[in-house]
Amino acid sequence: MTVKYLIRTFVFAALLLASSGSLADMRGSGDLGVIIERASGSIQIIETTNRTKLFSVEGLGDLSHASVVFSRDQRFAFVFGRDGGLTKVDILTGKIVKRVVQGGNAIGGAISQDGKLVAVSNYEPGGVRVFNSQTLEMVADIPAEYDGGLLSKTVGLVDAPGNKFIFSLYDAGQTWIADFSASNTPVITKFTDIGLLPYDGLITPDARYYIAGLFGEDGMAMLDLWHPEKGIKRILDGYGRGEEPLPVYKMPHLEGWAAAGGNIFLPAIGRYEVLVVSASSWKEVARIPVHGQPVFAMARPDGRQVWVNFAHPKNDVLQVIDVDTMSIIKTFKPGRAILHMEFTPRGEQIWVSVRDRNVVEVYDTTTLEKITELPVDTPSGIFLSARASRMGL
Amino acid sequence: MTVKYLIRTFVFAALLLASSGSLADMRGSGDLGVIIERASGSIQIIETTNRTKLFSVEGLGDLSHASVVFSRDQRFAFVFGRDGGLTKVDILTGKIVKRVVQGGNAIGGAISQDGKLVAVSNYEPGGVRVFNSQTLEMVADIPAEYDGGLLSKTVGLVDAPGNKFIFSLYDAGQTWIADFSASNTPVITKFTDIGLLPYDGLITPDARYYIAGLFGEDGMAMLDLWHPEKGIKRILDGYGRGEEPLPVYKMPHLEGWAAAGGNIFLPAIGRYEVLVVSASSWKEVARIPVHGQPVFAMARPDGRQVWVNFAHPKNDVLQVIDVDTMSIIKTFKPGRAILHMEFTPRGEQIWVSVRDRNVVEVYDTTTLEKITELPVDTPSGIFLSARASRMGL
Repeated sequence: MTVKYLIRTFVFAALLLASSGSLADMRGSGDLGVIIERASGSIQIIETTNRTKLFSVEGLGDLSHASVVFSRDQRFAFVFGRDGGLTKVDILTGKIVKRVVQGGNAIGGAISQDGKLVAVSNYEPGGVRVFNSQTLEMVADIPAEYDGGLLSKTVGLVDAPGNKFIFSLYDAGQTWIADFSASNTPVITKFTDIGLLPYDGLITPDARYYIAGLFGEDGMAMLDLWHPEKGIKRILDGYGRGEEPLPVYKMPHLEGWAAAGGNIFLPAIGRYEVLVVSASSWKEVARIPVHGQPVFAMARPDGRQVWVNFAHPKNDVLQVIDVDTMSIIKTFKPGRAILHMEFTPRGEQIWVSVRDRNVVEVYDTTTLEKITELPVDTPSGIFLSARASRMGL
Repeated sequence: MTVKYLIRTFVFAALLLASSGSLADMRGSGDLGVIIERASGSIQIIETTNRTKLFSVEGLGDLSHASVVFSRDQRFAFVFGRDGGLTKVDILTGKIVKRVVQGGNAIGGAISQDGKLVAVSNYEPGGVRVFNSQTLEMVADIPAEYDGGLLSKTVGLVDAPGNKFIFSLYDAGQTWIADFSASNTPVITKFTDIGLLPYDGLITPDARYYIAGLFGEDGMAMLDLWHPEKGIKRILDGYGRGEEPLPVYKMPHLEGWAAAGGNIFLPAIGRYEVLVVSASSWKEVARIPVHGQPVFAMARPDGRQVWVNFAHPKNDVLQVIDVDTMSIIKTFKPGRAILHMEFTPRGEQIWVSVRDRNVVEVYDTTTLEKITELPVDTPSGIFLSARASRMGL
């Protein structure tokens, strides 16, 4: 037996072991999530089965208004930073795979229905840029041009069935559909004069209706994606800030709209109320008094509860609405700056960011008791990997 | 440099490599699925991104009426066989982790909201058995006793929020709720006299209503889980087989009910029709004529289309209903014995089992064109891992 022989044997054994993978490291990706550490430009990767932290990932830039989408296999997170950074993170290994700074000032993104394209909505330069989700190479640049050369900030970017992206032009009062179903050169459909200053947009959970909130008018602009030929329809006049304007400390997030029991629960603007609107008639059916100006009103996946957080200075409180009786059944006071919350996909837990206490709390949604809390540095957005299987998030 | 030193060095290197895992083998589990190979007692594990087969797994017993649920991390599939076999399969490695034969004749299973319990519905011995999802050790045995000692076949087993399982007793005409929220000794609530011969059950996508089909009566039995104290309510009189009875070649699957646009689309029994029922009033609002006796009527996740397969001898055809116009927009003839179909979670693809051609076909649901087909031995049920994040499946 020579030394050379021994070396060959051990190299071969090493390669065999390595190529078969380590069972200890292998894991499913259905119970993973990303928590934004707002102040430090880092994220934590967590899992919701044993509720532990798996990795810290640093170097993601300005995450002061960050959001996340996931690849269709739930292995990769795409993190959209405020500074135009787009970072692809392997959530199974906790490593950054690729990072590009694609714009000067960005406000969220989306992933196409087929998972091949990632789109980013930019304030600066105004428009939407679309990237190959494998390589982060840019495949399409859609400047939001209006009035013969001006560029508008873009807001309310969502994905829609048929490999479409939909977004609104804040300065131009328009909504655009970019259809990537035929090729990476999108077919653009523009809806003009939708109303003044659309500030955010959402798509309903069935991905049929796109709705833009209007900062400059007292109502919202709705597009029925089953009938785009019918154009934009105005809904919910009286929702907005036009009637009895009140000081608004923080604009509510439209993504936080909650669909439950045939109704939509949405944060009123400025008022201490959650509005209940019929999802078939789009008329208001009730108003539920709450603790402060609501920011997010989020439905438990079975629609039985809606959890609400609030704008400064009342942002230390969390309330739970029972949808059946439309009344508050619990008020928590977990600490200052409750910035975001996320339900596990089957709704048994909710994860809540309490920024000023540097913790994320986890509640059991049946008992309404706290299960645990995890140390997280200035936590804001919480995004679980099950979002990969949902439309419009 | 001694031989011993070299050996030590290489063993250390081998262990290092192995413990760091192989990036080549590591993968997300969000785009995986299991296809039942009915005749051979085997399954295929596939992925829907590149649409390829990853593994074959053999030795799962009688899979002639098999179904599958997934662990909450989407790493493990629990396969329920007709012969009472319960098999836990690691879908990342394609290996059987554990297999128990827990009953003599079984008809499906469910996984609890928290992912810790797997329940199996048995014909023989009549009842439900509940297992630890980690170890497959039995934690609860719920014999379906009625009339002082008789045991009923159990059907229509589903999970519900609050770590509950719900099922019906075929012979006894009862529906039971088994509540595991406090401990593994369930609190059982029984609803008696729900109607004659409940043959299957479902829970609506929002997990609020449990509905049992009645083989012995002309209607269905509904329980509002938000108000169990109100008891069972009869709905859809005229749905069943009592009125103008026709020969029924195959009972439709209630799990195939499709919720779309505020309506439920369900296969009529015996008639060549898909019934459209309001999900708020539970009244029939339309009937859509179709090619044969429907078996599954499944809604694309955005509710824009409903795909329908049919009972023998018309089981070589697949039809697509446009929900907006309630009309057939496409009729396919892929081959004999179309047994099952499954949408990807965001609805861009549908996978279809064509048993007698030994293929699974994949269609693009926007273009309605076939994308590819995979060889599969006598394919029947198709179950994608995204089911882990849904209730009642």
